[in-house]
Amino acid sequence: MHRLSSPVAHALIPVAALIGIAFALYQWYLVSKIKVSVDNQTHENGNGNVNGENGTHEMEEGVDGRDVRKKCAEIQEAVSIGANSFLFTEYEYLGYFMTAFAVVIFLFLGSVHNFSTHKKPCAYDESKLCHSPVANAVFSCIAFILGALTSVLSGYLGMKIATYANARTTLEAQKGVGPAFIVAYRSGAVMGFLLASLALLVLYIAINVFKLYFHDDWEGLYDSITGYGLGGSSVALFGRVGGGIYTKAADVGADLVGKVERNIPEDDPRNPAVIADNVGDNVGDIAGMGSDLFGSYAESSCAALFVASISSFGINHEFPAMMYPLLISSMGIIVCLITTLFVTDFQKLTTIKDIGPALKNQILISTVLMTGGVALVTFVTLPVHFTLFDFGREKHVKNWHLFFCVCSGLWAGLVIGYTTEYYTSNAFQPVKDVANSCKTGAATNVIFGLALGYKSVIIPIFAIAVAIYVGFALAAMYGIALAALGMLSTIATGLSIDAYGPISDNAGGIAEMAGMPHNVRETTDALDAAGNTTAAIGKGFAIGSAALVSLALFGAYVSRVGLDTVNVLNKKVIIGLLVGAMLPYWFSALTMKSVGSAALKMVEEVRRQFNEIPGLMEGTAKPDYATCVKISTDASIKKMIAPGALVMVTPLITGTFFGIETLAGLLAGALVSGVQVAISASNSGGAWDNAKKYIEAGASEHARLLGPKGSEAHKAAVIGDTIGDPLKDTSGPSLNILIKLMAVESLVFAPFFKAHGGLFFK
Amino acid sequence: MHRLSSPVAHALIPVAALIGIAFALYQWYLVSKIKVSVDNQTHENGNGNVNGENGTHEMEEGVDGRDVRKKCAEIQEAVSIGANSFLFTEYEYLGYFMTAFAVVIFLFLGSVHNFSTHKKPCAYDESKLCHSPVANAVFSCIAFILGALTSVLSGYLGMKIATYANARTTLEAQKGVGPAFIVAYRSGAVMGFLLASLALLVLYIAINVFKLYFHDDWEGLYDSITGYGLGGSSVALFGRVGGGIYTKAADVGADLVGKVERNIPEDDPRNPAVIADNVGDNVGDIAGMGSDLFGSYAESSCAALFVASISSFGINHEFPAMMYPLLISSMGIIVCLITTLFVTDFQKLTTIKDIGPALKNQILISTVLMTGGVALVTFVTLPVHFTLFDFGREKHVKNWHLFFCVCSGLWAGLVIGYTTEYYTSNAFQPVKDVANSCKTGAATNVIFGLALGYKSVIIPIFAIAVAIYVGFALAAMYGIALAALGMLSTIATGLSIDAYGPISDNAGGIAEMAGMPHNVRETTDALDAAGNTTAAIGKGFAIGSAALVSLALFGAYVSRVGLDTVNVLNKKVIIGLLVGAMLPYWFSALTMKSVGSAALKMVEEVRRQFNEIPGLMEGTAKPDYATCVKISTDASIKKMIAPGALVMVTPLITGTFFGIETLAGLLAGALVSGVQVAISASNSGGAWDNAKKYIEAGASEHARLLGPKGSEAHKAAVIGDTIGDPLKDTSGPSLNILIKLMAVESLVFAPFFKAHGGLFFK
Repeated sequence: MHRLSSPVAHALIPVAALIGIAFALYQWYLVSKIKVSVDNQTHENGNGNVNGENGTHEMEEGVDGRDVRKKCAEIQEAVSIGANSFLFTEYEYLGYFMTAFAVVIFLFLGSVHNFSTHKKPCAYDESKLCHSPVANAVFSCIAFILGALTSVLSGYLGMKIATYANARTTLEAQKGVGPAFIVAYRSGAVMGFLLASLALLVLYIAINVFKLYFHDDWEGLYDSITGYGLGGSSVALFGRVGGGIYTKAADVGADLVGKVERNIPEDDPRNPAVIADNVGDNVGDIAGMGSDLFGSYAESSCAALFVASISSFGINHEFPAMMYPLLISSMGIIVCLITTLFVTDFQKLTTIKDIGPALKNQILISTVLMTGGVALVTFVTLPVHFTLFDFGREKHVKNWHLFFCVCSGLWAGLVIGYTTEYYTSNAFQPVKDVANSCKTGAATNVIFGLALGYKSVIIPIFAIAVAIYVGFALAAMYGIALAALGMLSTIATGLSIDAYGPISDNAGGIAEMAGMPHNVRETTDALDAAGNTTAAIGKGFAIGSAALVSLALFGAYVSRVGLDTVNVLNKKVIIGLLVGAMLPYWFSALTMKSVGSAALKMVEEVRRQFNEIPGLMEGTAKPDYATCVKISTDASIKKMIAPGALVMVTPLITGTFFGIETLAGLLAGALVSGVQVAISASNSGGAWDNAKKYIEAGASEHARLLGPKGSEAHKAAVIGDTIGDPLKDTSGPSLNILIKLMAVESLVFAPFFKAHGGLFFK
Repeated sequence: MHRLSSPVAHALIPVAALIGIAFALYQWYLVSKIKVSVDNQTHENGNGNVNGENGTHEMEEGVDGRDVRKKCAEIQEAVSIGANSFLFTEYEYLGYFMTAFAVVIFLFLGSVHNFSTHKKPCAYDESKLCHSPVANAVFSCIAFILGALTSVLSGYLGMKIATYANARTTLEAQKGVGPAFIVAYRSGAVMGFLLASLALLVLYIAINVFKLYFHDDWEGLYDSITGYGLGGSSVALFGRVGGGIYTKAADVGADLVGKVERNIPEDDPRNPAVIADNVGDNVGDIAGMGSDLFGSYAESSCAALFVASISSFGINHEFPAMMYPLLISSMGIIVCLITTLFVTDFQKLTTIKDIGPALKNQILISTVLMTGGVALVTFVTLPVHFTLFDFGREKHVKNWHLFFCVCSGLWAGLVIGYTTEYYTSNAFQPVKDVANSCKTGAATNVIFGLALGYKSVIIPIFAIAVAIYVGFALAAMYGIALAALGMLSTIATGLSIDAYGPISDNAGGIAEMAGMPHNVRETTDALDAAGNTTAAIGKGFAIGSAALVSLALFGAYVSRVGLDTVNVLNKKVIIGLLVGAMLPYWFSALTMKSVGSAALKMVEEVRRQFNEIPGLMEGTAKPDYATCVKISTDASIKKMIAPGALVMVTPLITGTFFGIETLAGLLAGALVSGVQVAISASNSGGAWDNAKKYIEAGASEHARLLGPKGSEAHKAAVIGDTIGDPLKDTSGPSLNILIKLMAVESLVFAPFFKAHGGLFFK
């Protein structure tokens, strides 16, 4: 088989990215055909025919159809304004932080050779000259800012489309499950494809622009490009933590007073925290998660490129081979596009019980197709043999080795996804057991839920371990970076089904608030229940890939600082390991306490409104939504600082004062401990949520025995759900950023730590 | 200063142990002077004068004093019989297991050189001949069985004295806080001193007997002696897990129906699970904990001796120096004896608020005195200079280095103890915050409690890290073993205050069941609240020392299998690390689920009895205590198998199939992750318990605002307490056995793994 020529490979990457963007825009156009605004009089004719769906469900819009539509538009408007305003406040603070941190990067990296602008011998090949550390510092800053901006853009666009789609999903739910599902899914796809394509395109352009300066100084080029990952993940950290605190303070506050004390339904418009809750879904689960996965994606690409650059790929200037990681991602976009068509065009979903399988099939289809795609890319672009450098030793690798590396990650992702589904979907025994334990109250529910979360760690860890072993055995650290990339290659699909969840959740909220008929709420609830599971699956992917990414970054860091071994028997390494393993707990303590105290404030405000506003319970007076929105905003902005600082500052302090070995131990410790905490937290939370939904839905004999809403068992289930909220949406998912971010930050600052680190232990 | 001669040093160890045993028996005698049995008519005169306490509290025994006394005797009898019967059932199963495992040890170790009985070159000095692996196998088996039997004896004696003391404490509580406290404390001391002295004495005798065979083959001697630690910890594992499941199934079951549903007080005799609950305190918190700390103590001694044997100590036959670890422990017994006098004789405790400080001072006094004791032992017995072997490199060490190693552990223990107190005592802000969060219900209570547990990990981890760094920097792995020994040197005091807790808890139960006046119950509650905190402190010590012990054992293992480095960048090590970090979660999932499902059964039985036995609620009919005892017994025996097997089998499988490096990674991973899970679990649980007690006691304006018993906030607090039960008394404390036991087991089987391990990765 002929190998692909350089210009063709070159061209394929932006082409794939542009195809992805075009596809996203087309999906957006399809969604936009559903009209929410009442001024537009064409909706009566138009919106029945989107996507060829019509007829099977009768239009239920009666005389007051326009009223409902207007109410939906109003609520959507309120949620959108709230989300916008929060994100802008958050981004303003992020702007200050990013500027300050860019200065830190410049000062630290520039100081490596005392701000000398002369060329110096390269780190990996001292016979050649590389660019000065100052050039590295400048370009790292640029890459950092670029990564941060792309991450902000990813989160923001996701939020925009989600707030655009939620009311449309509600309206379509009047027509039945099929149309509503399609709208929610298409909207998720807009976000998924936009994000994957943008990330790829910006990285591609940045590499090519930077290359104009660095020429064949691959080391300098990829040293600098790593800043892109750091920028992406820094924004993701604050997005996840801030958004997570926002959404859960509102959610917990709304539930505790509304559902538990006042016995009013979820998303009831009388609940003053209801708008804040819905805003939270968009800024936390959508914008935060978008930034998060963008960060993983950027980092795994950077890690793979960095390791490639210090292998013979880079030394021989094999451009297509050097671009192999990006070509894998490009192929991923195309594969996901085809996968999406399976659910939007090739099949027609009509009943509630099809939703779960349809979403699950998306993951399976994309994984199977991608396996073929990886084979194609591998055998077309890579030389048959080449040499990697494995911590100083040469390692001879064949192209099919790399195929297996990528696939080990890809399939490990599938295993993690399916395991997560098993432990968090109420179609299976584990969640049913948790629901059953509600019989004896909240305490046993919590005990069972925690045990479930702990247990759900086992299979994913083995899957990750196998991927690591295969990746490492076949291609050392490069193999691990490729495994991470493999797991993330189907990110567009992963994000689509992930974003689908909060959109459906919001759609349900809007249906409730707009006072739509019971069956509409039932439809959106069914969409939402499937969404809970897919959200858990998405988190599973995010954590699994984070583990692989940070291991690859860890390898790159160790290689960059010139350590041959990271020996557990070294006193510096073992204390690093121990303290590193503690960090996820410290971080979780901060984030959970933040949610807890913000929720306390929210509860007090909601109680105050119920007590002081006459007619609120009766629905004759309107609650003061704005104060609740403000409480969430203030709390999240204020409380994201401490956990954010912990993650950003720890590697700097450790590297500067305790040296490169302690930092290596710290990264390894945070990695192996953080993965467990993250998986167990998000699965416990997902299981509690779905155990509650299981009792509410009452779809089986057993469930009806426990229910209905308002029963003692249901109350116990609500308590479990509330406890799970910060675990699954704040601390759990932020932890994967913690482990990635500390690793990428260490890598970016590696030249500084190598030159000046370890002040205390010298 | 003249160094101590060998025979004197020799003699000091058994003398200290015998003094300890004599002191324990004297305490027992003092406790026995309080008469429970009604047949003895002398009590009216005798028991007011125990320990010189009299007069300050009026005797409240009225006309029905004899009735109360009789009731107490009955209840004590019932609890004692239940505990006895459970322990014998447990020990029966343990007997089978131990026999089987002894055979495994013999087969594995004997097979190292195909059961050849010829002498072979020593592992560390190939110019000399050492005894055959078969001799090693035989003596390891003997040591294993000896360790197991001593552990069983320790747990059993602890249970005996505790069930002997509980009713006596209740009776003394009629006279006031002081007398009751003294009885409970003396009884704790019986256990503490018996255990510490027995462990030391048996180990000392075993070494000297084994030496008759091994002569100057120190390697063979300490290879075999390590089996003592393995035996002790194996029993501890099943004791902790079995006892933990027993006690918490009963406790959770009793609370859920009694306190939450039926609104009757804790320990109300109408509750069918109340006897099982009180039995549980004795078999779990007393017998289980006794075996646990005995295991730590045995293992840290073995680890120190083992490392010493491969240093110049052993090679030069410096017997006093070789015996240094045991001399430290001997000094510890004497120091703790003096410390005990401070609370029993030198000061007089009269009010409730003195209890906490008095217990806290015990730890401080013992630490300060022990620092002097360590100095004495160090400078009197050790040569000024000597040489250690640090993984093949020679390391020159001075005697004061070792002083600092021991003290780093000793003082780290104090820091951990005080931190634990800060996070679990309701005198401080963290628990008050948790109590305050009950205002908004159980969910926020749980969120705050989990966050508190996570946060409480930070300082202990730093303390352990400093101890490791100091120990390692000064004397490599031997330094770490000494640090562990230092932390455990005050074990007699640690155990006294630890055992004091469940004794007081039981005393309260008996007061309630015997229908004693309100003020008696208040006194025992105050004793119990202080006991909760000391129990948490004891757990902190157990975990901290377990971390140091298992690191020392890990070092000994690595050295024994001949690894130079344990490199995180090695694919075998990293997957071991990742899977090892997962094991504490797997283990916790199993134990918590066991408690949960046993509690479910218990709840159903208790509910059934309340529903089906007429007059039970009114107190006119007696509940069927025996069925509840049986449920707890069956559940704990059945459910301890899976977690026990996980811990015992994992190192064998990993070493045999995946090799010594993967096993090294696994041990390190389990260590760094397990410590965090264990600390956070036991502190969350302790905090919830005391938050509940804080509301119940209503001792401050704030507490009264949240209370009284039965208020919404109190109900939320009870739920938190119930969730904390399995965390703090089952899974949390068992985890420190997990990390120690896997390490000591790996060390015992090291010769086998080195010879035949790694079948899959060869």
